[in-house]
Amino acid sequence: MEAAKEKEKLVNGVNVDQLFSTIDLIKDKPEVAKFKFRATNTWIDGTHNRATVKDFYGALEEDNSREPMVFHEDEPPVLLGTNQGANPVEYLLVALSGCLTTSLIAHASARGIEIKRVKSRYEGDIDLRGFLGISDDVLVGYQSIRVYFEIDADISEEQKEELVRMAQKYSPVFNTITKSADVSVQLDS
Amino acid sequence: MEAAKEKEKLVNGVNVDQLFSTIDLIKDKPEVAKFKFRATNTWIDGTHNRATVKDFYGALEEDNSREPMVFHEDEPPVLLGTNQGANPVEYLLVALSGCLTTSLIAHASARGIEIKRVKSRYEGDIDLRGFLGISDDVLVGYQSIRVYFEIDADISEEQKEELVRMAQKYSPVFNTITKSADVSVQLDS
Repeated sequence: MEAAKEKEKLVNGVNVDQLFSTIDLIKDKPEVAKFKFRATNTWIDGTHNRATVKDFYGALEEDNSREPMVFHEDEPPVLLGTNQGANPVEYLLVALSGCLTTSLIAHASARGIEIKRVKSRYEGDIDLRGFLGISDDVLVGYQSIRVYFEIDADISEEQKEELVRMAQKYSPVFNTITKSADVSVQLDS
Repeated sequence: MEAAKEKEKLVNGVNVDQLFSTIDLIKDKPEVAKFKFRATNTWIDGTHNRATVKDFYGALEEDNSREPMVFHEDEPPVLLGTNQGANPVEYLLVALSGCLTTSLIAHASARGIEIKRVKSRYEGDIDLRGFLGISDDVLVGYQSIRVYFEIDADISEEQKEELVRMAQKYSPVFNTITKSADVSVQLDS
């Protein structure tokens, strides 16, 4: 996944030469596209726990080169916590926001569309009767999530709408949430 | 959602008196359980963007009391980024890890089960041919996520298995991912 070093073309800070050479490489060798992402979590106390992200597998090799990235998760007092961090359902919105944004930027860049500014906001509804086991009739997870994008670029309203459609179509987090994914949970043996 | 202040019972750091009084209050007034969680995101450059979490609505009121919590998201160089933060699909695992852990601890605490230690690890498979638009035949999102829990507590293996089942049953993030949620994305007007 080496880019041509001589004249690299950046669009919106995305190296589109590297992007297209990666796509060509993957068309030739599909196994290059298989990635495994990872996290670990340690419970601290009450609703406070700490997740760490470091290594991953991709492009046919293990990558252990990053420094550990640590995330504290907790609840606000109204949900029995002490505000040691954002809560897990907020982290889900963080994940969704980053993924839709990167998907939008990457696909705009591939089409040569220059973007000046992108902002977005997220709001999701949860009825805690699910989590608390009070009612089996309410969803435990998010009932709905609303996302609003502001895009500043010299393109038409239709092109902005098309970017928002592409962001959704190609975002792994958006598709994991809206299409569901298989999650197996077990005791470590 | 005020707890009885005189003799609060903590199990695993969870105030179970407050937990049970919250449950009683919600049984009486289900609208207390309706929460709205939020995030905003600002694109920075390339695959680097920044999400912020602060206010939420819940227990019948807006809560704007927390300091802003800021999360940088980026990709590693092999995915065209410069490692300014964990990537969005890694944040999804962070969210899942915090939610399963808190769900496990809260439900163990409600049952009076003392937990000494909980650790867990997460690995998810993604085929980037989906994100890159190379193939319509592969899932864009996570294909599968595997979770392994280590629980240290003076309980039987069966009770540990039961805790792992409860963690899944009541975790909002787990249920959002495995059952899917409605996400609407639009341009801000």
